[in-house]
Amino acid sequence: MTPHEFVRRLIPHRNAPQVQHGQAWAPVNIALAKYWGKRDTALNLPQNSSLSISLPQLGTDTRVTLIEGADRITLNGQPAPQAFAQRLSRFLDLFRPEGMGFAVETHNSVPTAAGLASSASGFAALVKALDQLFDWRLSAQKLSMLARLGSGSASRSLFNGFALWHRGQQTDGLDSYAEPIDIQWPDLRIGLLEIDTGTKPISSTAGMQQTVATCPLYRAWPEFAEASVQAQLAAITARDLPQLGDLAEHNALTMHATMIATHPSVLYWTADSVSAMQQIWALRQQGVGVWFTMDAGPNLKLLFEKTDQRAVEATFPTLKTLVPFG
Amino acid sequence: MTPHEFVRRLIPHRNAPQVQHGQAWAPVNIALAKYWGKRDTALNLPQNSSLSISLPQLGTDTRVTLIEGADRITLNGQPAPQAFAQRLSRFLDLFRPEGMGFAVETHNSVPTAAGLASSASGFAALVKALDQLFDWRLSAQKLSMLARLGSGSASRSLFNGFALWHRGQQTDGLDSYAEPIDIQWPDLRIGLLEIDTGTKPISSTAGMQQTVATCPLYRAWPEFAEASVQAQLAAITARDLPQLGDLAEHNALTMHATMIATHPSVLYWTADSVSAMQQIWALRQQGVGVWFTMDAGPNLKLLFEKTDQRAVEATFPTLKTLVPFG
Repeated sequence: MTPHEFVRRLIPHRNAPQVQHGQAWAPVNIALAKYWGKRDTALNLPQNSSLSISLPQLGTDTRVTLIEGADRITLNGQPAPQAFAQRLSRFLDLFRPEGMGFAVETHNSVPTAAGLASSASGFAALVKALDQLFDWRLSAQKLSMLARLGSGSASRSLFNGFALWHRGQQTDGLDSYAEPIDIQWPDLRIGLLEIDTGTKPISSTAGMQQTVATCPLYRAWPEFAEASVQAQLAAITARDLPQLGDLAEHNALTMHATMIATHPSVLYWTADSVSAMQQIWALRQQGVGVWFTMDAGPNLKLLFEKTDQRAVEATFPTLKTLVPFG
Repeated sequence: MTPHEFVRRLIPHRNAPQVQHGQAWAPVNIALAKYWGKRDTALNLPQNSSLSISLPQLGTDTRVTLIEGADRITLNGQPAPQAFAQRLSRFLDLFRPEGMGFAVETHNSVPTAAGLASSASGFAALVKALDQLFDWRLSAQKLSMLARLGSGSASRSLFNGFALWHRGQQTDGLDSYAEPIDIQWPDLRIGLLEIDTGTKPISSTAGMQQTVATCPLYRAWPEFAEASVQAQLAAITARDLPQLGDLAEHNALTMHATMIATHPSVLYWTADSVSAMQQIWALRQQGVGVWFTMDAGPNLKLLFEKTDQRAVEATFPTLKTLVPFG
């Protein structure tokens, strides 16, 4: 199935725009059980389910309008960089009325240096805005599948709180959607720890493809990752942070292990990443309940609870602490 | 099969000492295709074959004498540390004439801070000294199996140059021995790069056991490791350093990946290890033919050829360069 066919399955009756524009907001999300590896690159179907927590303070606001002529895409008030604009236009082709263009105004409240991918919140906000514009009235589940076509992790940014993106079994991808996990956890904290770095050695998409293609250990990942999701679900239901933190940290380290064993090696860590990891382990030995996760970059994201916030921030003065259920 | 039974199979007729003492020397070795994981902890039978190069300038000299009473073990002229002495005495039990003790004088020419395990050269030198003392006249292949009982990697320290330790298939361990690879490579260089560190987070033996027990990726290791050995053999036969270096570096990184994904994580790298790895990758991008390998510690061992020695040493002024075929 092609992405175009997929969209036709989800949106059988295409409507003319019902309003002049659509506008929507979506949060970024931090994966606690990582998405790493695609089984279908065109449909962004994952090798494994994944689980995340959204950060409602950070995200993307997008306004979309149908226009005559070519797409006009702005990012934070400026003409968008070419690669960004091309990626969005290709995605918009899936929904484009013949001969029309889209004006897309996107604003990210994600600090550029925070080490957070804005593509997840960006594609989630965009499909929500399109849903308004075309009056599709699709369920969040179906919107998550449309967002998935833009960026896999965007499927999870349709929701606040914890979200689970199901791997799915079908080749058509119609069972690979995200849904929210109905748990509140007001004392939970997420700390963003920025690690200075130059440019990334490789994009996360390319790193993922290379890992699947050349990492001799990767074949053991999907089964582990699936078990991670189930174990994390249980820890979330019990609001058991020591358990959830331990599972999330092990999950992230195992994903990074598959990157490191890739050929040529994909090492997103810098010396400072390793120092921060060791500081966190030292804090835990002192009884502070703090764990970390890392994505395809050098930055760390910390998990802790309100009671340990002071101790964690004392060790990492530049930490930006967020309240997911604030 | 117990280690005692194993020794009885290799040395059916025990002789009384034929000389007053035995004395022998054995080199350290650097694994290019790593030994990581045991299939039998009593007999030190490995999950996979491994391949190494010996450093003839560094090693252990051991003199052993039969005495009345308890063992007397010295290391570099001093009474040996208790853990070291106990490990040797337990090994010597396998060969001990009833009621007798051993005097063992061991001298390591391995700089303690070089990040080189002296147990490999130590057990290799000890079994060679015992062979003299008892006049067993065992083949190097059989001596490598006896050394293996003391420390797996010691099986490879019976030889100069490249050595291959065969995994073996039998449960009795009688087909798990090392043998030399008959290749000279005078231009090859090994550089020892010491990385400052505090104490190791965990011994290599414990790290290995934990990896096998809890690393979700480990099950993919043995097959990869076996293929590594075969590919490295071909590169050695062709004296193809870009190929051998690439294979050795990927092998080491994949072993470290299994450690990193262990639960709890076994991370031997420090921030400085990561900086050194990145310096080596930068050197390669500049056209310098240098690759690294790492064992269960923070230090790097560099592979290069004579032509690149100046460039490598310019980047790493503290490097100790050795000539394996000097």
